[in-house]
Amino acid sequence: MDVTRSNFKQTIPLILDAIDKSAFLSIDTELTGLQTSKNMSYRVFDSLQQRYSKFKDSASNFQILQYGICTFELQDDKKLLAKPFNFYLFPRSNELLKTDLVFSCQSGSIDFLVNHNFDFNKTFYDGIPFMSQEEYSIKKEFVAQERDDIILNEKDEDFVLPQLTSIENWLQTKENNNWKLEINNAYSRRLLYQEVKKKFNGFVQLEKSMVGGKTFLEAKCLKIEDKSLETIKKDNYLNELDEQFGFSRIIKEIINKKKIVVGHNLLLDICHTYQKFIGQLPNDVGEFKSTLNENFPLILDTKYIAKSKLAAEIESTHLGDLFEITNKLVKDDDLLIKCCDGFNQYSEDSNKFHEAGYDAYCTGSAFAKMMFSLSKKENISMADTLKQNYLLSYSNKFNLMSSIIDSFNVTESESKVFKIKQLAISATKNNVFLLTDFVEPMNHSQIVETIPSEVGKVMFTHSIDSNNAV
Amino acid sequence: MDVTRSNFKQTIPLILDAIDKSAFLSIDTELTGLQTSKNMSYRVFDSLQQRYSKFKDSASNFQILQYGICTFELQDDKKLLAKPFNFYLFPRSNELLKTDLVFSCQSGSIDFLVNHNFDFNKTFYDGIPFMSQEEYSIKKEFVAQERDDIILNEKDEDFVLPQLTSIENWLQTKENNNWKLEINNAYSRRLLYQEVKKKFNGFVQLEKSMVGGKTFLEAKCLKIEDKSLETIKKDNYLNELDEQFGFSRIIKEIINKKKIVVGHNLLLDICHTYQKFIGQLPNDVGEFKSTLNENFPLILDTKYIAKSKLAAEIESTHLGDLFEITNKLVKDDDLLIKCCDGFNQYSEDSNKFHEAGYDAYCTGSAFAKMMFSLSKKENISMADTLKQNYLLSYSNKFNLMSSIIDSFNVTESESKVFKIKQLAISATKNNVFLLTDFVEPMNHSQIVETIPSEVGKVMFTHSIDSNNAV
Repeated sequence: MDVTRSNFKQTIPLILDAIDKSAFLSIDTELTGLQTSKNMSYRVFDSLQQRYSKFKDSASNFQILQYGICTFELQDDKKLLAKPFNFYLFPRSNELLKTDLVFSCQSGSIDFLVNHNFDFNKTFYDGIPFMSQEEYSIKKEFVAQERDDIILNEKDEDFVLPQLTSIENWLQTKENNNWKLEINNAYSRRLLYQEVKKKFNGFVQLEKSMVGGKTFLEAKCLKIEDKSLETIKKDNYLNELDEQFGFSRIIKEIINKKKIVVGHNLLLDICHTYQKFIGQLPNDVGEFKSTLNENFPLILDTKYIAKSKLAAEIESTHLGDLFEITNKLVKDDDLLIKCCDGFNQYSEDSNKFHEAGYDAYCTGSAFAKMMFSLSKKENISMADTLKQNYLLSYSNKFNLMSSIIDSFNVTESESKVFKIKQLAISATKNNVFLLTDFVEPMNHSQIVETIPSEVGKVMFTHSIDSNNAV
Repeated sequence: MDVTRSNFKQTIPLILDAIDKSAFLSIDTELTGLQTSKNMSYRVFDSLQQRYSKFKDSASNFQILQYGICTFELQDDKKLLAKPFNFYLFPRSNELLKTDLVFSCQSGSIDFLVNHNFDFNKTFYDGIPFMSQEEYSIKKEFVAQERDDIILNEKDEDFVLPQLTSIENWLQTKENNNWKLEINNAYSRRLLYQEVKKKFNGFVQLEKSMVGGKTFLEAKCLKIEDKSLETIKKDNYLNELDEQFGFSRIIKEIINKKKIVVGHNLLLDICHTYQKFIGQLPNDVGEFKSTLNENFPLILDTKYIAKSKLAAEIESTHLGDLFEITNKLVKDDDLLIKCCDGFNQYSEDSNKFHEAGYDAYCTGSAFAKMMFSLSKKENISMADTLKQNYLLSYSNKFNLMSSIIDSFNVTESESKVFKIKQLAISATKNNVFLLTDFVEPMNHSQIVETIPSEVGKVMFTHSIDSNNAV
């Protein structure tokens, strides 16, 4: 189901209900770009912190144009009902809220979307707005100005009370000139704002003015119409703020309901999800892991599971292949996955790859079939398979592309076989690395085994001592 | 006329002919954004260098999605024939050329284009590519590798000649093993590449390999098919390079033909034009002025002309108003401007503002009518009005928005009434400025007159000495 700004509001109940009923849900994103510069391209020897920093840079600069969510409801132990939603997103500017986002596009990524028939007009004309929870809170606080009242001490009262009396007198006599006082101290002004608002129930408003380096407060008596205008303005602001929060409400629901989230090679999608809908990604990878875990306690990466747990059955973990292979591995008779009426009737022949809703559907389907296949041997029901207890050993580990590190483990600290340092021997020899801090002694062939084939030929020219190798 | 990648090639002759025949041409751009951050917003007291740096930042980060060019051909002294072209641009990525541009978008600017019915799909799916002359030259040189040959001295020959003989022997005996030699010196390798290529007419190719820190050259005998494959690859590269140069060819033609270029408030358009189609904008505003002048010797800004030369007749210089007012100021009987058959039949009622071709048309029309109005008093023919001699006093001066500086003058150095320095007195008093280096003594009211009304109230709190004011 395509969801745009035009039908978002009316579709919210359907979306929330689908999330609520789901055993798990899968996600996917379509992005405006991947790498802001050549420095940000992945290197096989990236440390976990380096790789995460590249993801953070990407998620901070590029935009999500389409967000796919597919919910999967367990109907009986042999049947899952899928509801794929395809959200078009765009963070419109808003004058009242002072939002006007600058984001990056990479022409190669735009070309990629063009090759998969992406409708840019739909996203720019009719995309659903969004705003991170963090920004939403700041803006809400800004308008509410819910600062705690200062409790007046004796000295404060000595200053404030005579002024209140003076304003009261002015109100009663209604002289032509407004009540006006020079107050150069900011604290004194704040006291007076606070107490005038309380005493006159908002009908007297103090306005600041500066003349010749001096600061004055001037009292203005609001008419009933003016006062309601103030309230209307505030209501407008809050309404627009809620509207701008938009799609983030859906992500908030997934977090609140502690739903199981599935994705294919999804670390970058998750970084984008965090940055766009929760708040600024932290700089430190350790901090990211813990705060991610608080928000999404159970994330599963189908690429990681396929590679690490079902390598014998699954020769290619490309999403298209994985979807096809898992459909052959587990037949419909054993586990039927069907799209709900009223939703896009995706199937194996749909071939809508890189439409976020379809990719989410394929990912969730492959996940369910892989888990069925894994738990079958242990004779565990599908309902129990999809519970936290069973999933725990597969969860919170992400596949890492082009990396010597086998996975990004959210709940454990970085596994250290050895540390790798790039040696700056000379500008032309930038593929020379120092391996150091070995956990246990390793010989050359053991080291070579840890290095993925894509690195190419590895050569050891020197052994500095028993613990280091170059 | 809309021009996209689909019809660009076949339309080139028509475009070049229109440029060639034109008395002048007008331009306009539609952009993905204006300001990358709040720091880049315009301040009334920006120095010329500061303002230019903001324009450079904008032109370096944002993209042109649509470029309008309208040529105006003088048919007789009372008639101009307009040919408005509306180019959709997009710098596709190209694997062979290794181009993959990252650019910025500002959501407010996207919203602006949405409000004017911009077709994003047309630009992303079918935009004409482009590449700056600078980048084109670098890439062309890269494939040509036209390094001058080294002239061999006696010592060089002593090294090279025995190797050539050795390779010749190997070629004749055709042993199983390839000819191979350890050569660790880069200069020696270059000599051998050069002489082997010459002697064997490209049929023997040397390939470098490194083993255990040693460098080897290995000779490979190319078959006729392989050799032509090399040539085909190079031809492919050059063809793709020319294709990617795309729209830049049109700008190059305008530069080569030294055409008169007209725009409305066009300094930012000109910065984009320079950055995208000529090369990196220089950092220094003075350098920009001189290199801009070399490329475009005669640029005219309709907003500057309207404000500075026809202020009495033209009360609003907004493009829509200017177009309407100039159409009333100079009737069709005096000067008829007509769109050529086969082109969009723009007229006063078209209301296609912010379609680049239409804005260019309106700008050119307003320009012609203003110049008619200005030269009429002097009884000068339209043909003579549109010549360099007459236009010189109006040209190469750009309007500057929200600025104390009245214009950006390309051919003169910055006029200094006084220098303005922002005083960092305190974080809360950031509107305090030091005026210094007065060219001639000015009193308070004279200074106030130089400050545009949009600055708001100006107050002088101290006079430090006769030459400085705060």
